[in-house]
Amino acid sequence: MRFTVTYRILGSRTEARAKANDICIEQSIEFPLHLVRSRRIKDRVVGKLLSLRKCGIGAFAADIGYAEETAAGELSQFLNVLFGNTSLKPGIRVESFSLTPRLRRVFPGPRFGVEGLRRLTGVRSRPFICAALKPMGLDARELAALAYRFARGGVDLIKDDHGLSDQVYAPFDERVARVSEAVSKANAETGLRCLYAPNVTAGPDHVLDRGRIAHHRGAGALVVSPGLAGFPSVLALRQDPLVGLPILSHPALIGSFTVDPGSGIAHRALYGLLTRTAGADVTIFPNYGGRFSFTQADCRQIVEGCSESFGGLQPCCPAPGGGITMDRVPELCDFYGRDVIFLMGGGLSGAGDDLEENCQNFRRLVGG
Amino acid sequence: MRFTVTYRILGSRTEARAKANDICIEQSIEFPLHLVRSRRIKDRVVGKLLSLRKCGIGAFAADIGYAEETAAGELSQFLNVLFGNTSLKPGIRVESFSLTPRLRRVFPGPRFGVEGLRRLTGVRSRPFICAALKPMGLDARELAALAYRFARGGVDLIKDDHGLSDQVYAPFDERVARVSEAVSKANAETGLRCLYAPNVTAGPDHVLDRGRIAHHRGAGALVVSPGLAGFPSVLALRQDPLVGLPILSHPALIGSFTVDPGSGIAHRALYGLLTRTAGADVTIFPNYGGRFSFTQADCRQIVEGCSESFGGLQPCCPAPGGGITMDRVPELCDFYGRDVIFLMGGGLSGAGDDLEENCQNFRRLVGG
Repeated sequence: MRFTVTYRILGSRTEARAKANDICIEQSIEFPLHLVRSRRIKDRVVGKLLSLRKCGIGAFAADIGYAEETAAGELSQFLNVLFGNTSLKPGIRVESFSLTPRLRRVFPGPRFGVEGLRRLTGVRSRPFICAALKPMGLDARELAALAYRFARGGVDLIKDDHGLSDQVYAPFDERVARVSEAVSKANAETGLRCLYAPNVTAGPDHVLDRGRIAHHRGAGALVVSPGLAGFPSVLALRQDPLVGLPILSHPALIGSFTVDPGSGIAHRALYGLLTRTAGADVTIFPNYGGRFSFTQADCRQIVEGCSESFGGLQPCCPAPGGGITMDRVPELCDFYGRDVIFLMGGGLSGAGDDLEENCQNFRRLVGG
Repeated sequence: MRFTVTYRILGSRTEARAKANDICIEQSIEFPLHLVRSRRIKDRVVGKLLSLRKCGIGAFAADIGYAEETAAGELSQFLNVLFGNTSLKPGIRVESFSLTPRLRRVFPGPRFGVEGLRRLTGVRSRPFICAALKPMGLDARELAALAYRFARGGVDLIKDDHGLSDQVYAPFDERVARVSEAVSKANAETGLRCLYAPNVTAGPDHVLDRGRIAHHRGAGALVVSPGLAGFPSVLALRQDPLVGLPILSHPALIGSFTVDPGSGIAHRALYGLLTRTAGADVTIFPNYGGRFSFTQADCRQIVEGCSESFGGLQPCCPAPGGGITMDRVPELCDFYGRDVIFLMGGGLSGAGDDLEENCQNFRRLVGG
């Protein structure tokens, strides 16, 4: 069977067709077609242009089908077929893709998704709210004290700032132990079920260990940045039987994929479909109107990519962040609806001296 | 101590200064400065704008110093400080960076470098030549037969096409065993020391194992794509005592970092400095004038980034590829000099029916 990738290609119809035919080769055998002797390779390994249609001014959408065997059942190689060498060619953007049933077995998608997060936190029908532990430079005790106050104030999730890894300021093991304990204490007092998500982003020699340590220490979720650790790290955490926690995907270093509107990977595909394929339960992205440059349309497309029907994979939960402040929450509730996590970092500390009260206000603003 | 990152920022001087000050925060504490109570965090954790100077029309170069502790001695977190969130902001490009002595101990650079490759292959003073095993779809025996002919023809390296991972066509273990054996047989016959570099790109649960299997099976080098597996995978392979082979870094999926000239990571920094920091011995990139869009100037900058003085790290070897044909080799020898690996894939098969003769001709063209 073939999985399909839709590319948006800039140029005239003739140029777009030529580029699409090049993609079929580049993303599969990467070898001059006239030198291939095997009929089987020509028919069954080379990518196939399935359709080419106009999409906007000076742009065409090409659906290309690839044999599922070319992806080898591995996310690294699936990414390579999707866009490996073609990422080096400007004017071509990945818009969308599909999975075959066999690929869905190896890329089963979010384990928890929105429904799972509601089950774990007990948040029935409103948006989730999430606080961030920062600034970097605080020690593990200070971060734990901060987390305790957030949890007492009733946030649903507390995430490590994605820049907290294993610095001397607050080493991973100690931080995860202390913060997990503080959140657990607050939960016992409030009766709520706030989840703490430590950042486990690391190289291949450490990322799974950190996930397992986090689980063992009583963390409730994980943060990982696929741009730093590689998308396959997200999937490996998703599949590891000793981890088993919801995964929040952070966009560090993947900004360059969406910086040129004619190239790279579309917001919907990158923050939605690809993040779901990797198995993340939550996709963090920069909210419109904050200190980043994403537009409202970009954000809407991300929400679509998180929730649209996609081969039976669960939806993942959009998590806009990056400069959200209290005064914007009502507007954002209107825009995003209820299946969303609002991340507030500096805004929560900046809203007043009493952190617990700020959290309570945040919670009230989302209807909690 | 601080390491320095140089960003190119688009805008007026006032805008550039404001953006540079934002970067200092965004890439370190990511928290409003006026809410930070600790003097120590303000002085010693927050990034510092060290200089701002005009660089071209409507652009400024900002040197920002970051405390080495913020990188936690980990490549994933170093990348995050370098460009994590700022990758999400258009009009800012990483031009260059430095390492502190302490960072150089954890990022020791290429283990072999150009000199090491000369020692391993016995190639004294000419450019290296490298063939690629493809097309995908051939079985392990066919790939081994192809490798045997390349090695008999006298190429210095044979690399897996970066799309060969663990497909049913030619599973990793079988392929590596058969091809290593074939190359070893040819070497025994020719008296040469051709190195076979299998592709070990995979997720965190497999990448180190593949490197170790490759070593165990007698491979002479490795290919890995940091865009697919994550840059930390390159470093982990570099540092693993059971791997110990030269590493060829392949650019799959990192094209988006250079697609917009005002954003992302400059060619020199990405294919040169960062690849060296990750510990790759060879950096593969698209040659100018082929089927990709890199210019001659881009390629020159990559060569500079590979070879310039960089904190005592060894140079890595530039390896242009992507549509090189025989007729271009003399011109490319003039352009690149001798410390270079020319990759020829389809061009080597397309140059005539006798593969061994094609390899011999290729070798003669580089002075071998």
